[in-house]
Amino acid sequence: MSFNTFGKIFRFTTWGESHGPAIGCIVDGCPPNIPISEKDIMEDMNRRRPGKTKFTSQRKESDKVEILSGIFQGKTTGTPISMIIYNNDAKSRDYESIKNKFRPGHADFTYLIKYGIRDYRGGGRQSARETACRVAAGAIAKKVLKNFLGKKFNIIGAVTSLGILGCDKKKWNNKEIRKNPFFCPDKKSVKLWEKYLLAIRKTGSSCGATIEIRASGIPVGLGAPIYSKLDADIASALMSINAVKGVNIGEGMNASFLSGEENSDEMVKTGKKIKFKSNKAGGILGGISSGQDIIASFAVKPTSSILKERKTIDSKGKNTKISVKGRHDPCVGIRAVPIGEAMLACVLLDHYLLNRAQCN
Amino acid sequence: MSFNTFGKIFRFTTWGESHGPAIGCIVDGCPPNIPISEKDIMEDMNRRRPGKTKFTSQRKESDKVEILSGIFQGKTTGTPISMIIYNNDAKSRDYESIKNKFRPGHADFTYLIKYGIRDYRGGGRQSARETACRVAAGAIAKKVLKNFLGKKFNIIGAVTSLGILGCDKKKWNNKEIRKNPFFCPDKKSVKLWEKYLLAIRKTGSSCGATIEIRASGIPVGLGAPIYSKLDADIASALMSINAVKGVNIGEGMNASFLSGEENSDEMVKTGKKIKFKSNKAGGILGGISSGQDIIASFAVKPTSSILKERKTIDSKGKNTKISVKGRHDPCVGIRAVPIGEAMLACVLLDHYLLNRAQCN
Amino acid sequence: MSFNTFGKIFRFTTWGESHGPAIGCIVDGCPPNIPISEKDIMEDMNRRRPGKTKFTSQRKESDKVEILSGIFQGKTTGTPISMIIYNNDAKSRDYESIKNKFRPGHADFTYLIKYGIRDYRGGGRQSARETACRVAAGAIAKKVLKNFLGKKFNIIGAVTSLGILGCDKKKWNNKEIRKNPFFCPDKKSVKLWEKYLLAIRKTGSSCGATIEIRASGIPVGLGAPIYSKLDADIASALMSINAVKGVNIGEGMNASFLSGEENSDEMVKTGKKIKFKSNKAGGILGGISSGQDIIASFAVKPTSSILKERKTIDSKGKNTKISVKGRHDPCVGIRAVPIGEAMLACVLLDHYLLNRAQCN
Amino acid sequence: MSFNTFGKIFRFTTWGESHGPAIGCIVDGCPPNIPISEKDIMEDMNRRRPGKTKFTSQRKESDKVEILSGIFQGKTTGTPISMIIYNNDAKSRDYESIKNKFRPGHADFTYLIKYGIRDYRGGGRQSARETACRVAAGAIAKKVLKNFLGKKFNIIGAVTSLGILGCDKKKWNNKEIRKNPFFCPDKKSVKLWEKYLLAIRKTGSSCGATIEIRASGIPVGLGAPIYSKLDADIASALMSINAVKGVNIGEGMNASFLSGEENSDEMVKTGKKIKFKSNKAGGILGGISSGQDIIASFAVKPTSSILKERKTIDSKGKNTKISVKGRHDPCVGIRAVPIGEAMLACVLLDHYLLNRAQCN
Repeated sequence: MSFNTFGKIFRFTTWGESHGPAIGCIVDGCPPNIPISEKDIMEDMNRRRPGKTKFTSQRKESDKVEILSGIFQGKTTGTPISMIIYNNDAKSRDYESIKNKFRPGHADFTYLIKYGIRDYRGGGRQSARETACRVAAGAIAKKVLKNFLGKKFNIIGAVTSLGILGCDKKKWNNKEIRKNPFFCPDKKSVKLWEKYLLAIRKTGSSCGATIEIRASGIPVGLGAPIYSKLDADIASALMSINAVKGVNIGEGMNASFLSGEENSDEMVKTGKKIKFKSNKAGGILGGISSGQDIIASFAVKPTSSILKERKTIDSKGKNTKISVKGRHDPCVGIRAVPIGEAMLACVLLDHYLLNRAQCN
Repeated sequence: MSFNTFGKIFRFTTWGESHGPAIGCIVDGCPPNIPISEKDIMEDMNRRRPGKTKFTSQRKESDKVEILSGIFQGKTTGTPISMIIYNNDAKSRDYESIKNKFRPGHADFTYLIKYGIRDYRGGGRQSARETACRVAAGAIAKKVLKNFLGKKFNIIGAVTSLGILGCDKKKWNNKEIRKNPFFCPDKKSVKLWEKYLLAIRKTGSSCGATIEIRASGIPVGLGAPIYSKLDADIASALMSINAVKGVNIGEGMNASFLSGEENSDEMVKTGKKIKFKSNKAGGILGGISSGQDIIASFAVKPTSSILKERKTIDSKGKNTKISVKGRHDPCVGIRAVPIGEAMLACVLLDHYLLNRAQCN
Repeated sequence: MSFNTFGKIFRFTTWGESHGPAIGCIVDGCPPNIPISEKDIMEDMNRRRPGKTKFTSQRKESDKVEILSGIFQGKTTGTPISMIIYNNDAKSRDYESIKNKFRPGHADFTYLIKYGIRDYRGGGRQSARETACRVAAGAIAKKVLKNFLGKKFNIIGAVTSLGILGCDKKKWNNKEIRKNPFFCPDKKSVKLWEKYLLAIRKTGSSCGATIEIRASGIPVGLGAPIYSKLDADIASALMSINAVKGVNIGEGMNASFLSGEENSDEMVKTGKKIKFKSNKAGGILGGISSGQDIIASFAVKPTSSILKERKTIDSKGKNTKISVKGRHDPCVGIRAVPIGEAMLACVLLDHYLLNRAQCN
Repeated sequence: MSFNTFGKIFRFTTWGESHGPAIGCIVDGCPPNIPISEKDIMEDMNRRRPGKTKFTSQRKESDKVEILSGIFQGKTTGTPISMIIYNNDAKSRDYESIKNKFRPGHADFTYLIKYGIRDYRGGGRQSARETACRVAAGAIAKKVLKNFLGKKFNIIGAVTSLGILGCDKKKWNNKEIRKNPFFCPDKKSVKLWEKYLLAIRKTGSSCGATIEIRASGIPVGLGAPIYSKLDADIASALMSINAVKGVNIGEGMNASFLSGEENSDEMVKTGKKIKFKSNKAGGILGGISSGQDIIASFAVKPTSSILKERKTIDSKGKNTKISVKGRHDPCVGIRAVPIGEAMLACVLLDHYLLNRAQCN
């Protein structure tokens, strides 16, 4: 059972509400003797952090991670790593006017009916603020994986479509992703995306996004049939991110439109290397990594908190209308990129450790 | 940890290889005092069973389920329900010629590298034959859910696209689904699909499919944030099915192309009933059921075993070619319909029980 | 969650009732490429099997284990190993007369109140017949441990007290244990025990026993703090055996009567070997194996099914009396020896695999 | 899998080292709408806290618990409750002289060999300081149980033997336990215990203790066969406490010396009440609560940190001697009383919730 815990051997537990004093994350099962510092974690935290550009929420959070346990003389000890992030810029007053209304597309209604109580301030526990903790856990997972797999290991995500605008995935450039505020992999699309998002924001609307995460340098053999398949665990990991509605591995939903010969990746040996002629499978066969790049993508729905007026009911069941003010991302999908990377990193490390247990 | 076990409270464990003496399933955590008979299970088994029409594999399996424990005087006792299905029509000889070759798109390569050993006969444990066990577990889950939720509860799946051919989902008709060999919900599409699939089969190729599963009569409140969200568990459940490459909840991948106001479902009260004006969310908000129909869809890749010759390598690493004979489904997606229903039923029952524990 | 499943990585699930058609066990997470045969399993099964001597139940069961999956060409494949044992000598008629009475000391009352239904035949699922499945799983665990740890690895259990009669543990002799019907480690005690037990049986009474299990050749480092400590998992494993009421590690309950200097085992280096001068700790420090022999003991209460008349109530709540006929062990503790060995073996293998995952 | 997490549905995760900045506990799966305040928790914290009397360690810790999440307007919300306790009085210098020596009876050796690194300051993660977190979780569990079961519910523990000195359990008096510094249930024993413990302390030695925990007002039906039996989970819970070497349920180890008729508790109906004539079973039959008081006891070994000189080796494998100064409890068993209560409360609540899921 695991309500707020993710993973099998490398496990993390998150806690905290959007407008509480702090949020935090306990990483358990991290292998010992790995050098980890708060600095290692901050790089990814900064990529997710709000308030940096005009394309994201203006909530100002430093998202500084403090490590409270599990590290001794700069190295992991194998005991739980507790990390805390204080909430500095919660403005609970923004939520007073809507505390008795169910925001369409949000979990206000389902939380209240399920639990009979809910912290309405900033969405409480349902807030995407929780994902900061995932990024912290993922930064540790990346460091450990790099330690085990060496330089060939890499995880990088990108926004491959912003609302109705796609990009040219053949132009995918890891360096470009780090440069623009959209994590767009194709330089040519950036300008158009910028205009598009500003326009959406001006109208008080929002848009969705598609994110793709790629992991390279992954050995053959990660994944545990049948109900801990690598792809099943990735699907669960990514679908658990706020606002995600669909998950693809490799060709994903598109696979249903291909023929058998288009879809199955042929194998060839060139020199001493086994190669696949394509990667429709996204690096996973029968739930086990094949040595190719792991490719997973997911759709983030448009931000539900919009200025445009919408019909809803209040907690007494009366019909009403709502227009959500406050500081919201016009496209929450953008900041989902480091979150997706983090989740994939955690799944991969978990299966790396599990594989050490299972096989000699 | 759970390699071959699925679920949290309502849990099932499957075992068995495609060409071993039998396969089986242990259902644990089933509530007591529910009437269950082998007949209840056979209805769904028959819907998945191969060899019934010319559009599926010609392997003849009765798939008769024998219950060995957990039922006393016709009712569940709360103890594990063990079910066994004997393999009657395994033709291992068919696999002799390819036992040292890696079939593209199959898990032959990844299993061998991971485990250093594999049962090549019919794919061994990687075979979709394992899914018969899921259908048996799902039949029990459906019966229990019906017992708890009453007549308004229903789960039904359909093939909504067969290869490149879609259908008119607005014409969705539950009765029609049961009548045609494709589980197609739209009567008008059946004839064309039939011609199309026969043509594919003739050329020795295969095609994929999209399957949609709908569950109605589900109460508000099922789902456990954050890492046991109902949608995350459904994603894991469906992605664990052989050949599945993508999973959608509600609008799914399409959600990324919508605007905030298009996507978030407005709420209204009419009379004493709370209603949503649309169901883009697929019945799940913040990982918790909203009382609307649960709608999940998934893509099944085209059958990897095709007659068409493909490049591959053998277990000694030599380049070779392969053409897979034997009795294969031209579209494995069709028989995935009852499997998808079964997995959704198991997830829903699991969360129904979990919710009884969590909330008063 | 795990109702009928034991273990973390090396996991087994048991099913079946005392008087159903069969009982069985699924071993999941077993490492691949280990030679396992039904013969390997039968040796331990025969040690637990009833009906062999006049000191145990006269129920005649061959307890023949059939392996249905997970073994290919004589070796494990890493997939679940399903084992089935048919019930041949169930005499349900014996239970007709007491089916509505709660046997004191048995779980009849608690099962009925909890589940609202119970299979009264031979105790149904509460029967110690379930332990046959544990012995089968344990036999596999022993084989795998021997494969990994070599010849120095051994697990052996003994009855160290039978009712009020002890034995001289300093005379512990592994070979003697295999020779007498009581698994008594001290040859000199056997005759007296024999007379004592026959006398108890004659009077229609029963007696308890203390069992001690020793494992040697265990490396330092098995065990996972804090809530998966090796001793905590052993305690859970042994306490889950029917009729067990107490579990000790090393000095156990007696440790509370010692002084600090008597209890803590001093360490010395002699030559290249680190040695402990005593083993009060039972081979476990801080929940982690120390390299010394693992020593665990447990108390089995006297058989609750006795001929002597006892007061009880029936399922309608009326006062009545009961005298349990049928074929019962005068001391169920004796047959608990191979069960205790099996459980310890499973815990040790589980932690051996877990340690491979956790540490480099 | 759960290294630092305990429980199935009501779960808590602890983190922190003895001499780190803080320790903490995340309680997950707590039912919503239960009033919980820091004050509710402090009562039990104070009972475990060191530095209050001359019979415990002189480390001065306020053990003040701060709640960081999961409570809204004074009530639980169903989301994780994060609690933090700052370490105020860690004196790491005390450990400089022994940082390279393995203290006999401690986990220094096993941690270092297992992990290749260890935080030697105050025992790091192996320190009993971790148990403060358990007491915090247990205080919440008690409050929730009281909320569900009403006033008849109670949990209370006592030291029933201190070193070689027992007490008269027939004189058990709940009020007396709260009055004396030993949690002794029998007023007459207190003076002698006091003299005895001061004498032991003076000699630089230590002694063990036996603790008994009793829970009343527990309904019939808690416990989940076979591998989540209530007694198996209690055994695991108690054995996971630092320095515990043995666990008994009811008669415990003593049960092996009784006859069948002495041991099995007869049942009678008097008026409308079902009663047991004795409680040898400790309130558990077949792993399920019988409605009688749950009685569990455990042995705590003598404090391993003693002034008396002992042989040991250092981390380079050289023979040496050690005498442990610092501020240690002459009998760690005393402070184990609230810890034992806490663990039992957590197990009972967990099974209470689980039973709601399993049975109607």
